[in-house]
Amino acid sequence: VTTYELILVGFGRVGRRFKGLLDEKRAFLKREGIDVRVAGVVTRSHGCTSGGRPTPFHGTDTVIDLIARSRAAAREGRLVLVETTTLDIARGEPATTHVRAGLAGGAHVITANKGPAAFAYQALSKAARLAERRFLFEGAVMDGVPVFNLVRETLPGVNVSGFRGVINTTTNYMLTAMEGGATFAGALAEMQAAGIAEADASLDVDGWDAAAKTAALANALLDARITPHQVEREGITPGSGRRAAEARRSKRRLKLIASAGRAGDRVTARVALEELPGDDLLASVEGPQNAIVLQTDLVGEIAIVQRGSGLTQTAYALLSDLTTIARARPGARATLRPPPTAPARRSPSPSRRRTR
Amino acid sequence: VTTYELILVGFGRVGRRFKGLLDEKRAFLKREGIDVRVAGVVTRSHGCTSGGRPTPFHGTDTVIDLIARSRAAAREGRLVLVETTTLDIARGEPATTHVRAGLAGGAHVITANKGPAAFAYQALSKAARLAERRFLFEGAVMDGVPVFNLVRETLPGVNVSGFRGVINTTTNYMLTAMEGGATFAGALAEMQAAGIAEADASLDVDGWDAAAKTAALANALLDARITPHQVEREGITPGSGRRAAEARRSKRRLKLIASAGRAGDRVTARVALEELPGDDLLASVEGPQNAIVLQTDLVGEIAIVQRGSGLTQTAYALLSDLTTIARARPGARATLRPPPTAPARRSPSPSRRRTR
Repeated sequence: VTTYELILVGFGRVGRRFKGLLDEKRAFLKREGIDVRVAGVVTRSHGCTSGGRPTPFHGTDTVIDLIARSRAAAREGRLVLVETTTLDIARGEPATTHVRAGLAGGAHVITANKGPAAFAYQALSKAARLAERRFLFEGAVMDGVPVFNLVRETLPGVNVSGFRGVINTTTNYMLTAMEGGATFAGALAEMQAAGIAEADASLDVDGWDAAAKTAALANALLDARITPHQVEREGITPGSGRRAAEARRSKRRLKLIASAGRAGDRVTARVALEELPGDDLLASVEGPQNAIVLQTDLVGEIAIVQRGSGLTQTAYALLSDLTTIARARPGARATLRPPPTAPARRSPSPSRRRTR
Repeated sequence: VTTYELILVGFGRVGRRFKGLLDEKRAFLKREGIDVRVAGVVTRSHGCTSGGRPTPFHGTDTVIDLIARSRAAAREGRLVLVETTTLDIARGEPATTHVRAGLAGGAHVITANKGPAAFAYQALSKAARLAERRFLFEGAVMDGVPVFNLVRETLPGVNVSGFRGVINTTTNYMLTAMEGGATFAGALAEMQAAGIAEADASLDVDGWDAAAKTAALANALLDARITPHQVEREGITPGSGRRAAEARRSKRRLKLIASAGRAGDRVTARVALEELPGDDLLASVEGPQNAIVLQTDLVGEIAIVQRGSGLTQTAYALLSDLTTIARARPGARATLRPPPTAPARRSPSPSRRRTR
């Protein structure tokens, strides 16, 4: 069992649910060889708590300070920075700085924030590679439903050439509700009351959240180097509600579709309202559901669909990222008998080591 | 780079396409640290070829003989038995015996055959665990589209409590075609001409193929201990075509649905015709598509959809399994600097070993 020290940066609903999940899934974590200790918590409003004592630091300085205090864990690959601050769509900050600071200090970084992958995927991935640490963000798109892991872990050798998806829950729910006669304001209020819409409604209805996710997907899956500002973007308006209702009457569905694909050397990405035939897979993605269709060379088109979302799903993404880190740890899943010439690679116990 | 020695048992269309894919994806394999050498080929009709010389052996004896000749590779975890014989629905043989022989001889086993996981998943998994080798069968369901890997690699800690799916291409295509006015015989002939229907039509239309896949899924994902004969089973008939056309007229769809779930301590599994509302995700799975909806505790319902099938998709499943084996090899993806107290764990090169 390896004890991972966690630095929680941001401690809102997602961060707290993640902490709860760590307790609920302790037996599973133990089976994976994972023990966790929270080394510190940083929030913008409450400063920092470490070992029960509030500390006088704030923001990025605090993060750097906490990392410095966990030097031993960092050196041993046991330090994990858990980034759950809210998205800033202008620059993806302060999340990107937190990721950079974490990697520079020898921590793995896992985040449910779209910002870092949407604004700086290539730079952060390179930093992670050089530091021999991981930068993971499964929760950035479709919560804990695997998209990035799906491609990286289960489609080895497959080339993804593009994707299409419904990836913003608020606008998809609103379009479905408005088809049924709800007003724009009413549908939005419902999503805000449910805690699903972003605090700043413009992030959802103007397509910014979808654009950030599109950029993260394009950067990670298509090797693009774009930011959300380079994603061609359309949002929804009260007029979209009328269009959606009309489309439905003619057995079509109006959906806010995120898509990207390679065009020669370039990757083009967009978020746009599209009228889909009723039998299109994305047309049947209703209300709170999300879905992504991947275009691939070896397995054709495959789709992954999230049928419900919620806080646990988002928090689970972080648990999944933590497990990815632990499983990649040398020896973690070494179920093979070592070849005679190689060193033993289970956690060294005296009896095992003697048999070498 | 590790050189894996492959024993190809069965060398029909899937086996040959797999061999072609190994050549096409040589650059990818090299990046994964995989080199391959075909140590031998066994087919029921053509005996065995090893090192270019036809040998006088047949069937399981040949397999055992070939394994014995590759003793060094087996000892080092570099021997992989690739099972692609055709499904025998009565007992899952000879595939299951091949898998058992492979594991007993120290080989990893990868197979596109549903039989072993459908008839003997628990026993074979246990044998693999004890032998410290892998038994992988991603191609048994939905070709190379990940289902087993999806749960094992990307949903750590998630408990799957049941599933529903459309997993037999021939019957799904036939139902779609018959909705549109095709005859049962005509639709079946089309699937046989396309090389998609099993040689023995009963395997598809009587629901046996779906039942075998259902058993494999239930055994691997729900920890069941069932065979295809314990799956409640219904097939399609010319009468199903009339029912499908009627359902369609009332905006519903008739689908052959495979499902399983836990009921107390038991797992119940069935393959049955079901009339689905038009907006059900599985209702929109048309013709050659397949889909599985997983019921889970932490991420709710998620679905994975295969939008087209073919020989390359099936062969890719084997390539994906081979990569899974290589990635689990100690040190294969050890991108972390080892903690100071642990032994080095990259492939042992003299200079590295001296640094320990």
